[in-house]
Amino acid sequence: MQHPSPPADFFTVVDTQRALRRFRPDPVPDALLARVLSAATRAPSARGAEPWCFVVVRDAALRATIGAHYRRAFEAGAAFAAATDADRDVRTRPHYARMMRAAEDLALHFADVPVLVVCGLDHAQLGPLAAPDGTLRAPAAAYASVFPAVQNLLLAAHALGLGGTLTTLHRHFEAELKRLLAVPAAVEVVAIVPLGWPVDRPGPTRRKPLAAVAFRDVFGRSFEG
Amino acid sequence: MQHPSPPADFFTVVDTQRALRRFRPDPVPDALLARVLSAATRAPSARGAEPWCFVVVRDAALRATIGAHYRRAFEAGAAFAAATDADRDVRTRPHYARMMRAAEDLALHFADVPVLVVCGLDHAQLGPLAAPDGTLRAPAAAYASVFPAVQNLLLAAHALGLGGTLTTLHRHFEAELKRLLAVPAAVEVVAIVPLGWPVDRPGPTRRKPLAAVAFRDVFGRSFEG
Repeated sequence: MQHPSPPADFFTVVDTQRALRRFRPDPVPDALLARVLSAATRAPSARGAEPWCFVVVRDAALRATIGAHYRRAFEAGAAFAAATDADRDVRTRPHYARMMRAAEDLALHFADVPVLVVCGLDHAQLGPLAAPDGTLRAPAAAYASVFPAVQNLLLAAHALGLGGTLTTLHRHFEAELKRLLAVPAAVEVVAIVPLGWPVDRPGPTRRKPLAAVAFRDVFGRSFEG
Repeated sequence: MQHPSPPADFFTVVDTQRALRRFRPDPVPDALLARVLSAATRAPSARGAEPWCFVVVRDAALRATIGAHYRRAFEAGAAFAAATDADRDVRTRPHYARMMRAAEDLALHFADVPVLVVCGLDHAQLGPLAAPDGTLRAPAAAYASVFPAVQNLLLAAHALGLGGTLTTLHRHFEAELKRLLAVPAAVEVVAIVPLGWPVDRPGPTRRKPLAAVAFRDVFGRSFEG
């Protein structure tokens, strides 16, 4: 399937991706979602097993229920972070206040986001990375078979002019969410990606200098130096 | 920094990414690696903390040591998979035999790959997602802050004509690897990405039909239907 938008330069898409958390009510065409989902499935996975799945939730009643759960999870998470001062390392960074306002906005309006993409990882398709009962033998290796697909999904949405963000607060209501969407026991929900036409603009984004995170041969020896 | 290659169409890059596991000996310029690493850092992360790091290993002695470990881990993994028949669900798929030959080739020649990018996740930069001792409170959410960056790295390499693949066999020798590269205790190595000029050609790739992995509102109801 061809995407209806003009070609987007790869590095421009990557360099301007940022979390977009406020959405217009305008509907998102199925054809765009299909393109985004197709891009997600192009990601690599262990053994080429493609152990991911995506439930595209548009139904208003389902979104209302998920939104109520999400809001409670956000409030509980904010209370926990405050009680433990968990954000002390990032609170003074330039992006923090704006990010937290947008995250709260999203939590208050989660039910109104046009599309919620519930992203799953099937532990039964992980071969030696999971035990027969589904327990992950190698968690990092297992999640390496789903978050590249989620990132493809986010990048593709951005390439088409849609906005979204990777959320993981569903972990506080995963059992209820799985029941609501009839997700099989072996499938772990790993993220919910809200998608829609964004109110805010994408990047360019600000990042730590490369010298802070990229090293040459040994940790701590600047790559750039 | 500008990348020296011509602009690459975003969806073409995504749709033609595949694991490339055989490399020419030709050197990979620093400027290309810097572009690839910079793309990696554009990925999203929880709290905008950018908890990733990348050790770019070119040193031949280090690669020889890592390569010897990797080969032993591959052999142990293959023996485990054979003993438990762990690949019975994918063994008859069209891609399997070719993938396994290439994976073995990579294991035999890991020390000769021009560049090994060792990708890390700093548990001390995960805020509420990790306990003070570094234990992950929410593993999926934690790895959601590093594998999008690894995927950006792989896509950017492909956009520039480089080849690579996401490997996780280092988990069988992570302690030795961290000692070798002076990686701090709080940093978990989550992947090694071998990079170089590929011998084989990229995709297009074959995937399950979208109907098998994408659903509408509830699991099992075809998105395309």
